[in-house]
Amino acid sequence: MELNDQAAITSGSAFWSTTAAGDVPAITLTDGPHGVRLQVAGADDILAGQPATCFPPAVASGSTWDPELLRRMGEALGDECRAMGVHVLLGPGINLKRTPLGGRNFEYFSEDPLVAGVLATAWVQGLQSRGVGASLKHFAVNSQETDRMRVSADVDERTLRELYLRAFQRVVTEAQPWTVMCAYNKVNGVYASQNHFLLTEVLRDEWGFQGLVMSDWGAVVDRVEAVRAGLDLTMPGPDDGGDQALIEAVRAGRLPASTLATSASRVRDLAAKAVAATPTNYDIDEHHALAREIASRGIVLLKNEGAVLPLNPAQTVAVIGESARTPRYQGGGSSQITPTRLDDALSALEAAAPGRIRFTADAAEAEQLARDADVAIVFAATDFETEGSDRESLDLPATEIGLIRKVAAANPRTVVVLANGAVVRTTPWDADVQGLLEGWLLGQAGGSAIADVLLGTVNPSGRLAETIPLKLADHPSYLDFPGEAGHVRYGEGIHVGYRGFDAREQEVAYPFGFGLSYTTFAYGTATATATDAGIDLSVDVTNTGDRDGREVVQAYLSLPGSRVSRAPRELKAFANVEIPAGRTVTVKLHIDRADLAYWEVRLNRWIVEPGTYAIAVGSSSRHLHTGVTVTLDGDGAGARIPLSTDSTIGEWLADPRGAEVLGEVFAKMAAEGSGGMAAAMASDPALMQMAVSFPLDRMAMFPGSPFTPETLQELVKTANRTS
Amino acid sequence: MELNDQAAITSGSAFWSTTAAGDVPAITLTDGPHGVRLQVAGADDILAGQPATCFPPAVASGSTWDPELLRRMGEALGDECRAMGVHVLLGPGINLKRTPLGGRNFEYFSEDPLVAGVLATAWVQGLQSRGVGASLKHFAVNSQETDRMRVSADVDERTLRELYLRAFQRVVTEAQPWTVMCAYNKVNGVYASQNHFLLTEVLRDEWGFQGLVMSDWGAVVDRVEAVRAGLDLTMPGPDDGGDQALIEAVRAGRLPASTLATSASRVRDLAAKAVAATPTNYDIDEHHALAREIASRGIVLLKNEGAVLPLNPAQTVAVIGESARTPRYQGGGSSQITPTRLDDALSALEAAAPGRIRFTADAAEAEQLARDADVAIVFAATDFETEGSDRESLDLPATEIGLIRKVAAANPRTVVVLANGAVVRTTPWDADVQGLLEGWLLGQAGGSAIADVLLGTVNPSGRLAETIPLKLADHPSYLDFPGEAGHVRYGEGIHVGYRGFDAREQEVAYPFGFGLSYTTFAYGTATATATDAGIDLSVDVTNTGDRDGREVVQAYLSLPGSRVSRAPRELKAFANVEIPAGRTVTVKLHIDRADLAYWEVRLNRWIVEPGTYAIAVGSSSRHLHTGVTVTLDGDGAGARIPLSTDSTIGEWLADPRGAEVLGEVFAKMAAEGSGGMAAAMASDPALMQMAVSFPLDRMAMFPGSPFTPETLQELVKTANRTS
Repeated sequence: MELNDQAAITSGSAFWSTTAAGDVPAITLTDGPHGVRLQVAGADDILAGQPATCFPPAVASGSTWDPELLRRMGEALGDECRAMGVHVLLGPGINLKRTPLGGRNFEYFSEDPLVAGVLATAWVQGLQSRGVGASLKHFAVNSQETDRMRVSADVDERTLRELYLRAFQRVVTEAQPWTVMCAYNKVNGVYASQNHFLLTEVLRDEWGFQGLVMSDWGAVVDRVEAVRAGLDLTMPGPDDGGDQALIEAVRAGRLPASTLATSASRVRDLAAKAVAATPTNYDIDEHHALAREIASRGIVLLKNEGAVLPLNPAQTVAVIGESARTPRYQGGGSSQITPTRLDDALSALEAAAPGRIRFTADAAEAEQLARDADVAIVFAATDFETEGSDRESLDLPATEIGLIRKVAAANPRTVVVLANGAVVRTTPWDADVQGLLEGWLLGQAGGSAIADVLLGTVNPSGRLAETIPLKLADHPSYLDFPGEAGHVRYGEGIHVGYRGFDAREQEVAYPFGFGLSYTTFAYGTATATATDAGIDLSVDVTNTGDRDGREVVQAYLSLPGSRVSRAPRELKAFANVEIPAGRTVTVKLHIDRADLAYWEVRLNRWIVEPGTYAIAVGSSSRHLHTGVTVTLDGDGAGARIPLSTDSTIGEWLADPRGAEVLGEVFAKMAAEGSGGMAAAMASDPALMQMAVSFPLDRMAMFPGSPFTPETLQELVKTANRTS
Repeated sequence: MELNDQAAITSGSAFWSTTAAGDVPAITLTDGPHGVRLQVAGADDILAGQPATCFPPAVASGSTWDPELLRRMGEALGDECRAMGVHVLLGPGINLKRTPLGGRNFEYFSEDPLVAGVLATAWVQGLQSRGVGASLKHFAVNSQETDRMRVSADVDERTLRELYLRAFQRVVTEAQPWTVMCAYNKVNGVYASQNHFLLTEVLRDEWGFQGLVMSDWGAVVDRVEAVRAGLDLTMPGPDDGGDQALIEAVRAGRLPASTLATSASRVRDLAAKAVAATPTNYDIDEHHALAREIASRGIVLLKNEGAVLPLNPAQTVAVIGESARTPRYQGGGSSQITPTRLDDALSALEAAAPGRIRFTADAAEAEQLARDADVAIVFAATDFETEGSDRESLDLPATEIGLIRKVAAANPRTVVVLANGAVVRTTPWDADVQGLLEGWLLGQAGGSAIADVLLGTVNPSGRLAETIPLKLADHPSYLDFPGEAGHVRYGEGIHVGYRGFDAREQEVAYPFGFGLSYTTFAYGTATATATDAGIDLSVDVTNTGDRDGREVVQAYLSLPGSRVSRAPRELKAFANVEIPAGRTVTVKLHIDRADLAYWEVRLNRWIVEPGTYAIAVGSSSRHLHTGVTVTLDGDGAGARIPLSTDSTIGEWLADPRGAEVLGEVFAKMAAEGSGGMAAAMASDPALMQMAVSFPLDRMAMFPGSPFTPETLQELVKTANRTS
């Protein structure tokens, strides 16, 4: 391919199209991730989409904790893409919800990388099974909207690897998405779009990514540097200036011709794969039903005192709040879908329970209506949430809180149904109500789904994929969000979300992983077996109620005495199981050995430590019903951190071989009465207390030292020699 | 001076001596900071000191909040130095107590840079008034012992400037210490000993430091790089290898000859100043009395229910706990003093209240003894604390807690006297006792000082210079201490100590600034006046009790609506005033304008923001009795952050001139129907919500943009033009 064509096809030709050149066709990319937003032809508004199924945003689908549902959603989205001539759907979004204020949290799955990674893998596999490409985004560390185009997410490498990159790693290695989309922000000072470490060293060289890297729309600052870093496709286009800059850089020898050629060949490969999928149709009703099923499974029952739910067929019900009639079902920005139809909870309730539903939205009438009904349901919603700006408060709007309190005072049997893109503060008003249903943003069929759960047609099984704190200031990210002056410090490190709440021994309103059911479950004793592949777990779970239900069995791992700081509990496996009333199911969980590893920055690799791992199994991160320990060998010699002249006396003495080698030196000094300060330290416990933190070569600078640079090197060589 | 001599005198000749060469004499440096630890001549043990007055360590002197006391302590130390032939005393230590576990916290004053800076300034002025030099240490960010020789304290520049360097800045500019000692650790990846930014750019170029920079003992890793960075004197010595390396570096042109010559001339200047002081004597009794006075003023009365203290002359008193008889009065490591004498609390109490004191240390007898006495006093101490290692727990030893609980159960009138180098957890046992006296490490006269306070000879006025948290996991530093793999992230940023507890709205056991008295005080209404020099405050304080007493009046500042993140309250002024019983004193406080500024990283300078500052005045950070607001103009045009092509649309619109200039462009686009995406965004509120975070030049990359690189530059020029 000619240089000109190579430059041309590595940028778009329009907002949603790549560039055709020679035998490379243009293909169509469009926004997801919970629906296909194909811009209406000729519309000025890039957000005006043709009708498509608005599936539940990730905040809700993530709360299902069910990869099979996500796979079916991916398949359905793939069918809609093919029907609409879309070749790549821009999703899934798998950034971690670092803060509950993240303006785009509704597009992301979880504060935990395992939940996000497992669900997104299934979604990508589902989508791509239809011959449509995914675009895994936003790579990487795009966990806030504030200053999103410039801010540098300053995050240490261990945290980066174990938390912010971990879900990406899983999806790339397990599902090979056709494309990955880079984020707008900088990571440790370097734009994601120009980040060679992320786009090439980690993504391709380490993880073996085979697809194409595209930019987020407008994320490229310097086209040549972006291509050099491993970015293949700049969107949107045309970008004549950038094309020209690339050509000049190659001609001047500032950019290897092979680098651009490789990117161009990836665009060619993508286009070839993409056009292979033939158009098809999909059944709007079937997809609506699927959207309803996923939505009902994403609803989380947080409180159910006095079994106020499900509603009793004999009860009259006061339905209060505009969002019962005018649903908040998606967020703003690029993911906004024009739905094929739209259910509201009020109509769904009225249809299912004719004659028993009374409605107002009128705050003045609410009190009386609530007083006259058997049960009162308040639908409360956040203000509009959107891409582009973070939320300013964790609270519901004051009017909504006022309405809840007024209704709860009028009727003790009050249930709140929330509509929100990310968690809201539930204290102190949740103490006043008997029922609390977390309804998130549920997509176009959410209204029916809520009715299904309220009425008991569906037994709720959704689980929190993000912690609900007692107050915003409790959150691990609180002091370091949203940053300032172009930087946001990820100061809580590995202690993201529940990891931080657990580490700081904080009370929370509702813990990560939590969700009630209309039935109850009992856990047997967990057993565990270590294998070369990891750990296999088994636990019996019994449905002890009289209603069929689903349980999400969760396994959390810790390693007491680890040589690095660890979260008190990390989710390492989960299973979503259906258990008929009165029945017992043996639930099998597997933890991959790779998921036992931590990132060792001193060795620049993943390490499985030897030791006795503790695994707690339960129904949430703080409802752990059974525990088991497993002793593992670890990675052996490969995990040893070699001694050096810069290793401290303490490190030498803690290393068996180092202690032996240094012990001989100390013994010799003692015998000879030589060694000055070093000898004095070795023989005096009080001095030794101070000496343990001295690097060996610094000790060597003290008067009378027995060490020379040469003898130090000799000691190091001896200590590190593998026998 | 010859090159050889220059190299020779910039390292020591022995552990505690500089090198003599030509007409430059050798001088003696020795450890402080709360006593003169001159090594016994010929002793092998570098920590074996000749007898000297052991004044209260900084943990106690810092709790006096009284610079006049610190000045007198400095003077007395100066006299002892002259008596012992010591030219430079290695102190004061003014690192911030970032974590309560810091192994060397007892050598430091506070978690707040104002307290540390004001007290250390007076200490240095006192010492140097005697012709003896101070060595301000450890420069900088040496707030932990774990891996202290290597660890990189990773701290953002604003936090560095406003917190960790701030006390150093005050002491350097107000007291010009003869020397500054660099820390062992790295700061942001660069050894403090080789840190040109710290040792030259900040210390000399910005602050105008005129003295000499020496290394901590063994802190120099690369002598040439250290000298290049601005380190003048490497200790200890001899360092023949380093001397030779310097000579070779200068000869080879790798180090400017003038750089080494400048350092050598600073050693010469120091030596000349140092030997000018003639030997003198001091009065051991007078110094002991001063040590007792300071100690009694550093004791903090934390709890005094039912006025259990002071002890009533008619009461019998059970004294329980070994530390009543064998005082813990200093910490371990380089600051350890061989005292001239040593008081214990038991003897002091027995002498002052003959016949009324019963003692055991024996846990088995304690219960009975407590039951039989009118009042029981438990002396409880931490395990030995020392330089070189951080503490592992915030708790008292379990045996001490057990003793407290047993005694408290036997006698409701129980008082606990603590001996500890840094705060300990007081919950839950403090609920069981009526009195709690924080006795720190009080130096050689601490035993008498404790008796003075218990008996009411001294009315306690000490205040916490560090917060006592409810539990360790609450502490702002908790998740990021002590770091690992060579790095400790200062993740809490500016929210050090009470700033963090306040920001996170956390309960604490006893707040920063807190301390009770045997009398009570009432506050009038504060008034404030803004001047060019800062803010002058005035408040009437009345001693409403029947006993003379001291009050520490504290002023905390905040700026609601600041353009940067701020702590909810920052201590900006304090005064220690003696108020006779029944009398009212008008207390005047001054806040320097410099102390109103924050460090603006985008402009690389201190900025006083315009706005209405809120000042709360009270007796602790959480006992604020009166408030006042002051409106200030701020730094005007100098504080404006110039617009650039990388400024976001939101930043352009928030800037009055930027909004005007950009508004004209948008109006033109609207009139012409041009501008593509940019125009669409300008006219559509939903799009604008997403657009505000776009840098102007990134918007320019979208299809149909009206901007070229040239027109963008023109817009920037126009917007930044000063009219």
